[in-house]
Amino acid sequence: MKLLLINPNTSPFVTDMVAAAARTVIAPDVELTAVTGTYGPPIVSGRSEDALAAVEAMRLALEHAPGHDAVVLAISFDSGLQALRERLDIPVVGMTEAAMLTAMAVADRFALITFGYHARGIYVELARRYGLDARMSTVLSLPQLSDEQIRDPARVFPALRNLIEEVVRKDQAEAIILSGAIFANICGDIAPLVSVPVLNGVREAVGIAQSLVRLNLKKPLSGSYRLPEPKPVKWPFDVIERAYQSPS
Amino acid sequence: MKLLLINPNTSPFVTDMVAAAARTVIAPDVELTAVTGTYGPPIVSGRSEDALAAVEAMRLALEHAPGHDAVVLAISFDSGLQALRERLDIPVVGMTEAAMLTAMAVADRFALITFGYHARGIYVELARRYGLDARMSTVLSLPQLSDEQIRDPARVFPALRNLIEEVVRKDQAEAIILSGAIFANICGDIAPLVSVPVLNGVREAVGIAQSLVRLNLKKPLSGSYRLPEPKPVKWPFDVIERAYQSPS
Amino acid sequence: MKLLLINPNTSPFVTDMVAAAARTVIAPDVELTAVTGTYGPPIVSGRSEDALAAVEAMRLALEHAPGHDAVVLAISFDSGLQALRERLDIPVVGMTEAAMLTAMAVADRFALITFGYHARGIYVELARRYGLDARMSTVLSLPQLSDEQIRDPARVFPALRNLIEEVVRKDQAEAIILSGAIFANICGDIAPLVSVPVLNGVREAVGIAQSLVRLNLKKPLSGSYRLPEPKPVKWPFDVIERAYQSPS
Amino acid sequence: MKLLLINPNTSPFVTDMVAAAARTVIAPDVELTAVTGTYGPPIVSGRSEDALAAVEAMRLALEHAPGHDAVVLAISFDSGLQALRERLDIPVVGMTEAAMLTAMAVADRFALITFGYHARGIYVELARRYGLDARMSTVLSLPQLSDEQIRDPARVFPALRNLIEEVVRKDQAEAIILSGAIFANICGDIAPLVSVPVLNGVREAVGIAQSLVRLNLKKPLSGSYRLPEPKPVKWPFDVIERAYQSPS
Amino acid sequence: MKLLLINPNTSPFVTDMVAAAARTVIAPDVELTAVTGTYGPPIVSGRSEDALAAVEAMRLALEHAPGHDAVVLAISFDSGLQALRERLDIPVVGMTEAAMLTAMAVADRFALITFGYHARGIYVELARRYGLDARMSTVLSLPQLSDEQIRDPARVFPALRNLIEEVVRKDQAEAIILSGAIFANICGDIAPLVSVPVLNGVREAVGIAQSLVRLNLKKPLSGSYRLPEPKPVKWPFDVIERAYQSPS
Amino acid sequence: MKLLLINPNTSPFVTDMVAAAARTVIAPDVELTAVTGTYGPPIVSGRSEDALAAVEAMRLALEHAPGHDAVVLAISFDSGLQALRERLDIPVVGMTEAAMLTAMAVADRFALITFGYHARGIYVELARRYGLDARMSTVLSLPQLSDEQIRDPARVFPALRNLIEEVVRKDQAEAIILSGAIFANICGDIAPLVSVPVLNGVREAVGIAQSLVRLNLKKPLSGSYRLPEPKPVKWPFDVIERAYQSPS
Repeated sequence: MKLLLINPNTSPFVTDMVAAAARTVIAPDVELTAVTGTYGPPIVSGRSEDALAAVEAMRLALEHAPGHDAVVLAISFDSGLQALRERLDIPVVGMTEAAMLTAMAVADRFALITFGYHARGIYVELARRYGLDARMSTVLSLPQLSDEQIRDPARVFPALRNLIEEVVRKDQAEAIILSGAIFANICGDIAPLVSVPVLNGVREAVGIAQSLVRLNLKKPLSGSYRLPEPKPVKWPFDVIERAYQSPS
Repeated sequence: MKLLLINPNTSPFVTDMVAAAARTVIAPDVELTAVTGTYGPPIVSGRSEDALAAVEAMRLALEHAPGHDAVVLAISFDSGLQALRERLDIPVVGMTEAAMLTAMAVADRFALITFGYHARGIYVELARRYGLDARMSTVLSLPQLSDEQIRDPARVFPALRNLIEEVVRKDQAEAIILSGAIFANICGDIAPLVSVPVLNGVREAVGIAQSLVRLNLKKPLSGSYRLPEPKPVKWPFDVIERAYQSPS
Repeated sequence: MKLLLINPNTSPFVTDMVAAAARTVIAPDVELTAVTGTYGPPIVSGRSEDALAAVEAMRLALEHAPGHDAVVLAISFDSGLQALRERLDIPVVGMTEAAMLTAMAVADRFALITFGYHARGIYVELARRYGLDARMSTVLSLPQLSDEQIRDPARVFPALRNLIEEVVRKDQAEAIILSGAIFANICGDIAPLVSVPVLNGVREAVGIAQSLVRLNLKKPLSGSYRLPEPKPVKWPFDVIERAYQSPS
Repeated sequence: MKLLLINPNTSPFVTDMVAAAARTVIAPDVELTAVTGTYGPPIVSGRSEDALAAVEAMRLALEHAPGHDAVVLAISFDSGLQALRERLDIPVVGMTEAAMLTAMAVADRFALITFGYHARGIYVELARRYGLDARMSTVLSLPQLSDEQIRDPARVFPALRNLIEEVVRKDQAEAIILSGAIFANICGDIAPLVSVPVLNGVREAVGIAQSLVRLNLKKPLSGSYRLPEPKPVKWPFDVIERAYQSPS
Repeated sequence: MKLLLINPNTSPFVTDMVAAAARTVIAPDVELTAVTGTYGPPIVSGRSEDALAAVEAMRLALEHAPGHDAVVLAISFDSGLQALRERLDIPVVGMTEAAMLTAMAVADRFALITFGYHARGIYVELARRYGLDARMSTVLSLPQLSDEQIRDPARVFPALRNLIEEVVRKDQAEAIILSGAIFANICGDIAPLVSVPVLNGVREAVGIAQSLVRLNLKKPLSGSYRLPEPKPVKWPFDVIERAYQSPS
Repeated sequence: MKLLLINPNTSPFVTDMVAAAARTVIAPDVELTAVTGTYGPPIVSGRSEDALAAVEAMRLALEHAPGHDAVVLAISFDSGLQALRERLDIPVVGMTEAAMLTAMAVADRFALITFGYHARGIYVELARRYGLDARMSTVLSLPQLSDEQIRDPARVFPALRNLIEEVVRKDQAEAIILSGAIFANICGDIAPLVSVPVLNGVREAVGIAQSLVRLNLKKPLSGSYRLPEPKPVKWPFDVIERAYQSPS
């Protein structure tokens, strides 16, 4: 089985982090390739960048997906998830969607923790869009990470630990989603410090992607995820123009 | 007051139709300019095209919004609505959002009617994303419109009338959203044929946009709709690259 | 276009305040007339007074609506909104409904702030009744206003500012509805002090009312908002008795 | 224990029917008095009449409640329920609220059946207002009852039986609320004809009212159901004016 | 009327407490018998014990229900409620279900208070399962009760009073469910100390059970609460094996 | 990795069917053992049998789980899922929960199809309990399977195919959950006949279980899924009594 991990952020060090995390949860018969965005912001952090990342994820997927069995979308807003799921004929899994679905299999309600105050509304909307808001107890923030913290997230552990135990005590959260691709490979380090499971999404998405590949479910022929009809589409990226000219 | 109507579809005849509809509901002190997409499909009809249209809407908005007081987004998936609302410092209103908000001010529950069976799931998700699903009784379809019907929507009136009265009788709908930019200027023609109000969204969005301009509400300085920080963003469209370099 | 603003409270100074606020957002071709209640409490503040205000609003509407194009109901419980919307053949907009619908066009979740602790449950119920509770983050209170504060609401600004920033930080609110007709014309004064849009409802209702008039949607002939059949109704107010005798 | 049954409809024969039904479910130590409305329509059937009935229910309650231990509100829109619950210091139970609460103690989801198509939206809104919509599978209608059927509801049994079995089969309803005060004493006659429990609300409200009296719960001193402060209220009904002058 | 109160906990002193509380709210023509569990934990406090208690409740019900008119299930997780409601042909009422249904007839939103932090998620899930989460403002905990406090719950009054007033102020709760069978007969003692009604569930369940007996609703012949078909079931408890051999 | 599949039904041929289906989706490094219930009904089909199956699942899990890395619960009501998840320190996945979570990763809304009309209410409640009802479009039934159909489910394909296409067309379902352990290994045979993915739950649960094992999330130390304290529990099954005597 071959998995393609797409990081539509344009920061290769983030891709390396998430790919390393992703590889800790693959079965012996699974290979994982990771690609990084070229267009868009280094680290996507708001609504308009989310829109850019969705198209960049499409570009990367159309370019690199052939020959793979599933795609893991490693960006915490799940940018472009619905687009890729329609456009490709292999499974596509988003990291925050995967974190939420997995959290519900180990806990009643989960809380989501992010960094910086402006992204909270995006996650609130995401949970509602997914119809999962009844299982999300709250969305909380710590201050925006500094550059130092982005490269060494362990610096934020003490504040994080306090916030987690507070949300467990006050908001009935039984699992924590620590959002952001850069936390992908340190959730395990936080686990011993707190009383509840801590998920990030990347590894969870890799788990669900493997499951979907083995299930070999039918690509929908009807509904909103069927492949679109060929049609003339003008776009600066050739790979996108070509994709619409013939059924993928 | 100057309104900018953005049609990120690349079909100028659609822009003409919606602009004509839009102009029927503007106050004497309002001017409306309409622009059409260059990139993307002629008529957006699915999830991946929605992602393209979001970025094309951004491109058009960044190019044309300066000098205007509000933007009306004339595409029935509200493609890019959240992105524009964050990125611009003037109000932005989506047509289906506006149709739903307005329907709730004249009826208890509304039904949405679309053409072709694959878009229904997108509207179901949109209503849930907006947190308005409790007020939407159902989403129904008539078959995909033929080219002839797209250019002369009155041909579909008999089938439409029957479907509307059925949904009124069976699903407790008290208002109908007839989705699709191309229906913008014929809702009035359908009205005498049926027993409930019929909305489309374009004219409703123009109404709400005018209201928002006169309200002159503060652009948020916090939360998910505040303006993003300047950051280096690579993108094929210059206007997008430039926008991220300095606060808009 | 002629708008009728109905204040079913019996305090003329409140009507003056809200009418002044309302007039700041009307188009050049719009006139606004305001009427004040005769029966009921000076300022409606609870559930049983809400029931009285609903009937008083009906009395005022039946008396004064003829010759107008829409009604704005300037009472923060939206007392009688459903009754008027059924009974009249012109659009009727409630101020809190309008505040909520408008808040959703500029922010993800809104919080509502009221004065005195007993009204919170009424707003919680109102949001649920409207099916908008998923977009309301919380309802908060400051202590009941003193008479001095009712006549000079700026005295409450420091406490209000602190509460707003707290709800923004803690409850992910991205817009604030400052409930109560008496705040209608000072929202603009609070705006510079806080980081998010502040709505009141009166001006928002005037905006939506103008939109509905220009849309010229059909009065429903079916459903719960169609005009009731003539029937014998005994009531102390002649205008109400007469209204039921013949179709309005 | 003394119960007061209030029928704010002005049709004494309806009061007789519901009082007879009510008396079939009272304990040996319970007496029930029934009063009929003087003002308002003979049989309330829409939104504006609901507003009138709410005030008429208040008038009747303030006049007749003294000396009773609880009030049962025998009108299927629960007109004035919240107002009475705040205004009186004894329990008040609405018939449709009681039907819903009771249905949930014998079945998973219930359907509500009404007569005439225009009231459906009112019940949809009522269930949402009560936060019980997840347990209501649907609201259905049979045509408006003729005068003959109002006086002899058994005539409608065949059509009703078919509708009930259809909603059981198609909408997963496990209990039926047959709405309308006039059905109060014939639910028992329908029961043998169908496969699920049939509730009406009047008898269920009498059951809950007895329970509340024996529970002797505290009248709230805070929140939206506490007694309002004395205040000057002008109203054509003396009993209402007097009530606001001093704490009840 | 004969009521059977089932306490599937194996602590007779708890049964005595709840039976005493239950008897304070029965009508003159009602007798109440109480039985205690033999199998399972002394006091059920978590998810796996809930599963055991459900079967123990079934065993007790099948053994003791014959000759009774309704069953009251006196365990705060409502363990086995759905099973008994299907299996018996008399009404069955759970204590927390009854507390929630009753709270909604006296207040808008209720909060639930429990002891020890691990049960909160169970109540959150219970409210969601019942479809009543929109009316539950929050679930809060005080620390696990000590043995001394279990036998003399008044010791916890000061902490409880503070928590109740805090949840009233902060979470818009208008009624409190003080969960746990052992609080059944002290809610009345707490009432004078706080500003809102305090419910426990046992007495409320006895009230609803009496109502259901007098209503004499039909045992469902279809849906998920109809009696199961006879079938061979092997089980260590004879009474359970026998029940499945012939229609109860 | 060693997975334990628990079928608390007492029909070994069902266990064989589901184990065969389960083995089609395991990674090369995974072994799967399956066990069948001894106590309870041959095939669980209602609410009281669900309660028995929950305890039988506990008995089987406590007996057989040691030495395994995760448990898959192969019964379509997910009987005992919450109990096992608390009681064991390895992941536990229910088949219908897994079907729902997986369906949401390939489609917007799913419909669930069952056999016989009485189980529908149980699935409606299950979706609500899981907080996933917004994503479930409906629950439908075909008539109860005959013995012949249970052993040769292909006989039901023509009726099933028609029902699936109808629910796709009418209820906006984009994926189908074909509920019932006996359908575990024929979903693949139905797939070519219909236009949407068909899930059953057993294979999906095996996929999620593998994912959870590789994720190695922390067993909660707080909340409703933490391990219960040792306590004296009397129960006919030794393995259950012993489990409560010392932390598992």
